[in-house]
Amino acid sequence: MDESTTTAQHPATDRSSVTVLGLGPMGRALAGAFLAGGHRTTVWNRTPGREGALVERGALAAATAAEAVAAGELTVVCVVDYRAVEGVLGGEGVAEALRGRTLVNLSNDIPQRVRALAAWAEEHGVDYLDGAIMTPTPTIGTPDAVYLHSGPEAPFRRHLPVLEALGAAHTHLGEEIGLAAAYDIALLDVFYSAMGGFAHALAVAGAEGIGARELAPFANGIAKILPPIFEELAEEVDRGTFSGDDSPMTSAASAASHIVESSERHGIEAGIMRAVQGLTDRAVGLGHGGDGFIRITELLRRGARATA
Amino acid sequence: MDESTTTAQHPATDRSSVTVLGLGPMGRALAGAFLAGGHRTTVWNRTPGREGALVERGALAAATAAEAVAAGELTVVCVVDYRAVEGVLGGEGVAEALRGRTLVNLSNDIPQRVRALAAWAEEHGVDYLDGAIMTPTPTIGTPDAVYLHSGPEAPFRRHLPVLEALGAAHTHLGEEIGLAAAYDIALLDVFYSAMGGFAHALAVAGAEGIGARELAPFANGIAKILPPIFEELAEEVDRGTFSGDDSPMTSAASAASHIVESSERHGIEAGIMRAVQGLTDRAVGLGHGGDGFIRITELLRRGARATA
Repeated sequence: MDESTTTAQHPATDRSSVTVLGLGPMGRALAGAFLAGGHRTTVWNRTPGREGALVERGALAAATAAEAVAAGELTVVCVVDYRAVEGVLGGEGVAEALRGRTLVNLSNDIPQRVRALAAWAEEHGVDYLDGAIMTPTPTIGTPDAVYLHSGPEAPFRRHLPVLEALGAAHTHLGEEIGLAAAYDIALLDVFYSAMGGFAHALAVAGAEGIGARELAPFANGIAKILPPIFEELAEEVDRGTFSGDDSPMTSAASAASHIVESSERHGIEAGIMRAVQGLTDRAVGLGHGGDGFIRITELLRRGARATA
Repeated sequence: MDESTTTAQHPATDRSSVTVLGLGPMGRALAGAFLAGGHRTTVWNRTPGREGALVERGALAAATAAEAVAAGELTVVCVVDYRAVEGVLGGEGVAEALRGRTLVNLSNDIPQRVRALAAWAEEHGVDYLDGAIMTPTPTIGTPDAVYLHSGPEAPFRRHLPVLEALGAAHTHLGEEIGLAAAYDIALLDVFYSAMGGFAHALAVAGAEGIGARELAPFANGIAKILPPIFEELAEEVDRGTFSGDDSPMTSAASAASHIVESSERHGIEAGIMRAVQGLTDRAVGLGHGGDGFIRITELLRRGARATA
């Protein structure tokens, strides 16, 4: 990985022209940050009516995607997935307008489809960069925003001063175009698993008379213990060791069974934790009861090899 | 039999006698912290052989659980679950030895079984406090350790100076004995969901050629964005609003489907995320596609009401 996380040194000296395709909550936040950075910003959305507040702030509204792309040196697309990206890029005149320009795709999808889109871009003479937004909408344009990028480094470096209007932390992971999506998928996996657990915990706590705001400070305590654990377990996974000295798999299996039982006794389904329990119980069954929880990673990989 | 008389004048320097039942990794850490705090510490484990290092540090090893309990003003039990607790407390002479003393149970189980155990304790004239350890084994005895307690406040206050040897952060949640277990279950739900997601993310990232240590710093970035999100969503759940203005359910559903597809294309099962996807898809199907992810909590509760 290229350790190129950068810090903006000066507010935009370069008033470039940028196009944002897709005006969902995230696309609107991106366009707003470009405007705040002093860039000439053109916006377009498949269904009209979402550009109003941006136009009031100085954005130009394009009638078609091709017109929008033609107005910007750099086009950023942020829609729900790559089928939607392909829908936008397949619009009349869009590929032609993109030729010789740079497209930064901040939509989320799987690495395989990123690679297919990169092949399309190469055919059409478009510099294609893939990116992932790792922080929530309200962080966009603030120092808290975090972006991952992959693809050819030269256009990334060229457009970085403009991208920095979105936030200072941009990491170029490497030239392999699928990298940003692969990181994105893995990190969304962590995020939505935790979010699913939190949503479920609020339901179960509520059934015991505990308010969401009463639980939240302690849930934050859990979030705070995760980073050192993640660091340590990542080292174990790379080394292939799975120490259960601090906390064995049997403890995790027991906790999972208690969560499932407590939930279901309240009539609350516990599908996420049943899946965790399936993994811990299987690990115990395979003789890994004394190992640490992170043996699960090896178990999942082993399952993939066994069925390959 | 009653060895509880001390000559100390100041609570802070009180060298009390404490008993620890259960010498798994957590029980050993607890006993070690009591020893480090200068307390006379007696230990016992169902299967012998785990007390060696503690005895070298000055712990007394009891031959039976009853003998161990008789040696301490305060008994702390930390075993895998309440069936194991009941096994220990049902041992010959244990209930008799506990009469008039305080038992702090730091084992994990569901609130219903905590309440049953409290009834048993009342019958036997035992002051019973239930507790939960919210931080990992290496934090025990450090300022980072966090404990939750519930049950009668008087014995909690009386023994707090001794419990503080385990770490400074002890929260008494209330007198309802099941509260600590209810919080514990909910917080373990958050923890093991996140851990399951992390273990799975490492497997999927690995299949894309990304090392665990390469992913970990970014996974830590995800952990760091959770607390403000948890706070905000907890407020929404208590208010009964589920705003999707920043990020709608459809985005979560799309991300979940990408994670599942990416995982399964590598032959890696995706049970946890399939469960998340089931919830997001159902929320979209029920017309909540424009709501925020946390609508899931209400959906889970509604499911419980519908089947009640």
